Amino acid sequence: MALIVQKYGGTSMGNPERIKNVARRVLETQSAGHKVVTVVSAMSGVTDSLIKLARDVTAKPAGREMDMLLATGEQTSIALLAMALQNLGAKAVSLTGAQAGIVTDGVHTKAKIFNITPKQIHAHLDGGAIVIVAGFQGQTAAGEITTLGRGGSDLTAIALTAALKADKCEIYTDVDGVYTCDPRVVPDACKVDSICYEEMLEMASSGSKVMQSRSVEFANKFNVLFEVRSSFNHNQGTIVKTESPGMEDVVIRGVSIERNQAKVTLAGVPDQPGVAAKIFNALATDNVVVDVIVQTAPVDGRTDISFTTNKDELERADAALQVVAKNIGARGITQKAGVAKLSVVGIGMRSHSGVAAKLFDLLAAGGFNIQMISTSEIKIAVILDEDTIAEAAQAVHAGFGLAGDK
Amino acid sequence: MALIVQKYGGTSMGNPERIKNVARRVLETQSAGHKVVTVVSAMSGVTDSLIKLARDVTAKPAGREMDMLLATGEQTSIALLAMALQNLGAKAVSLTGAQAGIVTDGVHTKAKIFNITPKQIHAHLDGGAIVIVAGFQGQTAAGEITTLGRGGSDLTAIALTAALKADKCEIYTDVDGVYTCDPRVVPDACKVDSICYEEMLEMASSGSKVMQSRSVEFANKFNVLFEVRSSFNHNQGTIVKTESPGMEDVVIRGVSIERNQAKVTLAGVPDQPGVAAKIFNALATDNVVVDVIVQTAPVDGRTDISFTTNKDELERADAALQVVAKNIGARGITQKAGVAKLSVVGIGMRSHSGVAAKLFDLLAAGGFNIQMISTSEIKIAVILDEDTIAEAAQAVHAGFGLAGDK
Repeated sequence: MALIVQKYGGTSMGNPERIKNVARRVLETQSAGHKVVTVVSAMSGVTDSLIKLARDVTAKPAGREMDMLLATGEQTSIALLAMALQNLGAKAVSLTGAQAGIVTDGVHTKAKIFNITPKQIHAHLDGGAIVIVAGFQGQTAAGEITTLGRGGSDLTAIALTAALKADKCEIYTDVDGVYTCDPRVVPDACKVDSICYEEMLEMASSGSKVMQSRSVEFANKFNVLFEVRSSFNHNQGTIVKTESPGMEDVVIRGVSIERNQAKVTLAGVPDQPGVAAKIFNALATDNVVVDVIVQTAPVDGRTDISFTTNKDELERADAALQVVAKNIGARGITQKAGVAKLSVVGIGMRSHSGVAAKLFDLLAAGGFNIQMISTSEIKIAVILDEDTIAEAAQAVHAGFGLAGDK
Repeated sequence: MALIVQKYGGTSMGNPERIKNVARRVLETQSAGHKVVTVVSAMSGVTDSLIKLARDVTAKPAGREMDMLLATGEQTSIALLAMALQNLGAKAVSLTGAQAGIVTDGVHTKAKIFNITPKQIHAHLDGGAIVIVAGFQGQTAAGEITTLGRGGSDLTAIALTAALKADKCEIYTDVDGVYTCDPRVVPDACKVDSICYEEMLEMASSGSKVMQSRSVEFANKFNVLFEVRSSFNHNQGTIVKTESPGMEDVVIRGVSIERNQAKVTLAGVPDQPGVAAKIFNALATDNVVVDVIVQTAPVDGRTDISFTTNKDELERADAALQVVAKNIGARGITQKAGVAKLSVVGIGMRSHSGVAAKLFDLLAAGGFNIQMISTSEIKIAVILDEDTIAEAAQAVHAGFGLAGDK
């Protein structure tokens, strides 16, 4: 008898029929002889409706009240799933984050889990019940309701897996697992059987929407093995785990693309210590999230600094930079939306040379102009015209031999 | 500086605009120099939507899970009202029933309040905040979420008024207060300035929909004075309080009508001890709520027993009676829907004779046929044809001189 933690996202819980489907899957697992703890998200659309209600009442909702409001979404889901399971004759009990013993800090809307005291979960499991826990939420030691921010339900599942010392963690979603590239962009993309945390993190931060980086980091930290799989079929998913021997034999695990990027260049920036700090502090102060940063080698005591950001943040970035550009004596600011990022990811890169050269060759052969380059130990990212990004992804995916024989 | 408890119902909280309106009213009260605790219901329609969701998942939702589900309705309301108040610059904090210290028994979906430990409420009030408490809900000593059943938010407000030793309790609703009769039926009905608990109880149990009996009983038990008034205007409402000298001078406080009733008669029932008990035990077992009961004087060792019930319960009543009628040897069952109840209520009846006679005279003069009669110390109720109930109410209302000079 294993203890299995399952997590079902908002799409899987999207309506009463889907909730019944989830109930059948959860019961199957218990009937196979396992103890089951199920973490669920709010029904898809519910969180957005709640946010809209809040916005209709105030432009700036306080974090504490936002958490009070949003926590109702998951609470609704757990009650409905418990009912659906009971309707199938199963013994099931729902627990809010607070009742499940999930204690967080007091940073509303993006709280961090302090610790989990799963006394009630254990008691209900020992009583033979399927335990359904509200994802995305917890409470402070003082009893205030908190939420964990984006990707919070995945985090709940992974943290519970660690706290309960569960044997397995299954993250159910609306895709079959992690693919070598988005199948809507590259039709012959393949599902990846297993991937290590570092690769998963790079994929996540490169636009692969399967999971938020934060949950993967947490899993990495506590060494929680988990499987990403679909709640709509019974296919094997992708195992996400610590690096194991042989994994490095695969040079490239996947190709990620991220659209809606914008490129900003400060030209003629004085080549002095502290200048870059001034620029990016100004952006950080105005909450502009910067992705790729590139600085050219200085010529005549001046350099160009470019960075990318989400297209939606371009206006804010520009406003912040107008002031700082004057202060530091830069010659000008240019900006360009309509770019996208293509990343190739793989821990195999560490022991294989020539991956970057091969990527640039493939792009050159296709006539794709590289506008910026950024590399990490296990990732190479390039900025391309957004118009050509799908075509480029197909060429790179094929060039690295990632295509399946589907 | 007074401590005032206000309660706003679902219609008052019906949409973001109305929630903002409630926020303005609450803030007005605080700005007038008072401490304010506000109890709110779920936005109108929300509880029904949640019940529908539950029914889509299972025909028989368990009480515990139903409470987990329904409690989200009020939790949504408190968060939104707190935001709306903060948007006006006020200091406000929302508390769930559990956080407000409302401890109940474990009878899910109709829990009773055990006690209230308003430590958090006092702390927030002392800090200058308006405290917003979720109505209708509490938690057991073991931390299970419970709901209080119909009229639960009124009950929360009245119980909090008692526990906080508040100076005033205001129940805001979509009507101006208690009227001498339903103004949709009797256009010249008047608002009653004050009414005693007993009269309010008889009005409530006679079809006046302003408040559930349960909350009035609770207020009576703990001697909580409260005012029923409208959240859509600033008119004085109706004060509900303990009987005071002079109140008996008014013979009839009001006229209530209740439609959708049905009349059932068991004919030729043996006139023996225990027979009535058998009949009404059978009905109680099948959860048929019986209202007026009348038994005729026996003739030749047999009697007729009639009772009224809600039209919707007629089928269940009939099924229950078929068995018991055979057992006790009754001669037959007749039933008739399409009747309604008219009640005149007033504590003045206790010291004024001839009220019943006057009522029967008024009805006879109008040609209304009385089908059943039931009396209490402060109420006389008659069953009439439903078709004639509005006309009868107008005649009785006028005959007792209740009409206003509006």
